[in-house]
Amino acid sequence: MSKLTLVSSNKTFGGEQRVYSHESSEVGCTMKFGVFLPAEALAGTKLPVVMWLSGLTCTEQNFISKAGAQRVAAELKLIIVNPDTSPRGLNIEGEDDSYDFGSGAGFYVDATTNKWKKNYRMYSYVTKEFLSLVHDNFPTIPDKQGVFGHSMGGHGALIMTLKNPGMFSSVSAFAPISHPMECPWGHKCFGGYLGEDKDTWKAYDASVLVKTYDGPPLDILVDQGSADNFLKENQLLPEKFIEACKESNVPCVLRMKEGYDHSYYFIASFMEDHLRHHAKHLHH
Amino acid sequence: MSKLTLVSSNKTFGGEQRVYSHESSEVGCTMKFGVFLPAEALAGTKLPVVMWLSGLTCTEQNFISKAGAQRVAAELKLIIVNPDTSPRGLNIEGEDDSYDFGSGAGFYVDATTNKWKKNYRMYSYVTKEFLSLVHDNFPTIPDKQGVFGHSMGGHGALIMTLKNPGMFSSVSAFAPISHPMECPWGHKCFGGYLGEDKDTWKAYDASVLVKTYDGPPLDILVDQGSADNFLKENQLLPEKFIEACKESNVPCVLRMKEGYDHSYYFIASFMEDHLRHHAKHLHH
Repeated sequence: MSKLTLVSSNKTFGGEQRVYSHESSEVGCTMKFGVFLPAEALAGTKLPVVMWLSGLTCTEQNFISKAGAQRVAAELKLIIVNPDTSPRGLNIEGEDDSYDFGSGAGFYVDATTNKWKKNYRMYSYVTKEFLSLVHDNFPTIPDKQGVFGHSMGGHGALIMTLKNPGMFSSVSAFAPISHPMECPWGHKCFGGYLGEDKDTWKAYDASVLVKTYDGPPLDILVDQGSADNFLKENQLLPEKFIEACKESNVPCVLRMKEGYDHSYYFIASFMEDHLRHHAKHLHH
Repeated sequence: MSKLTLVSSNKTFGGEQRVYSHESSEVGCTMKFGVFLPAEALAGTKLPVVMWLSGLTCTEQNFISKAGAQRVAAELKLIIVNPDTSPRGLNIEGEDDSYDFGSGAGFYVDATTNKWKKNYRMYSYVTKEFLSLVHDNFPTIPDKQGVFGHSMGGHGALIMTLKNPGMFSSVSAFAPISHPMECPWGHKCFGGYLGEDKDTWKAYDASVLVKTYDGPPLDILVDQGSADNFLKENQLLPEKFIEACKESNVPCVLRMKEGYDHSYYFIASFMEDHLRHHAKHLHH
């Protein structure tokens, strides 16, 4: 069990927003993460946990300072955890050259190319090491966990749910990268981390994975702003995911939100809806 | 009327969080500010306005991204405006040397010392130029305005209310610097901006001003975290303000919030209470 170091703790909405660091064996560096513990968890009551996955460029700070999740999580008695978006400070040549590859852009895959495969293992980090660490260290109910995220993190939430039937009891996404095989961000990251054989990319594409999903019924909630520049640039392609869900009879609601963009101002506006969606399934 | 330049606009909670810049005549430089317009204001309905004043080191960004005010303001139909905390980029020698003097630390006074008196006029900037500009450009109800703030901005909210009877219909503060004449932050800023004659400092000290307040009845709400390091270091001295209010029969409620610190995690936790306090007076 990896040891946690407390980085910060701030009382908020009756609970505590904490940041910890730990030495990760999966990605081979020090990783930070956030955890919000409602008052009941601080008093030792076991609660469901919802994991948030952030988008490109984010650290653990963006979500915890801007999303306004703590107020709702306190009310709904949910623990929220949020890992970082990539390994950090590895001194791999090129890791800091662009906002959409390398640092801040792990894309929640396990890299297979020589340069990245040792450390860029965010898929295994999050689904195995990080979640184990959460359940080992905080008063969670291990079989009541949900996942949600934004953009690259929405992609992460969808693929982790689809690749691991039964692991998550609830799932939702804000403006997810829904069909990364067919968008520029996906091309860049899949090409760099997985190589040029596109068959290998299918293992991390929600619009492909949903077609072979075979597990407990899902109830997927997706919110997408209509004024999101990345929607217009065909980076997100939520319509492709919805089509694939329909073909596969997987229930997914896509709510187009008129005038909203890709920012945390959009996320904050619908955070309460999403957490109520998770609570409905997790407090069942 | 100074012309506004739109810097950014993000839809949030059905309204818009905007940032503008303008050329200020009072402080002699480009100043940015935030404004949240609820949906009703965007449709042209005149609404009350509440002004937020930020603390040391802040720009207009801290409040708009971290305080969670937009959700409540949307519900309560309040416009929220928040100016910057000092002039910027003037190339006055020493302006960027410390976090608690110069840039980010205007202290809401009109400087009188030679070096600072031309530009460091945040008191007049906020109470005259900025509020006029707000009423000229947005659908406000000019005689329904409130003011609140944090730390240095809580000090600003209190002194502006006490020095201008009737200007604000509602006032509140988070962890205000309540008696700056007697704390290290106040010594540094008052000494630098106003000079060494402490008699001149009294014009900007809430615990002094309240003793001669002669205006409409006040109903002051102050929240203070008990785990606030600056409280422990005697920078804030809320007890001195409460004493002075009692002597002067000015109603002020100080709520000590167990375990909360000086951060936006504290502010966000009680933002809803404060905005409801303002709405009670402004929608009257």
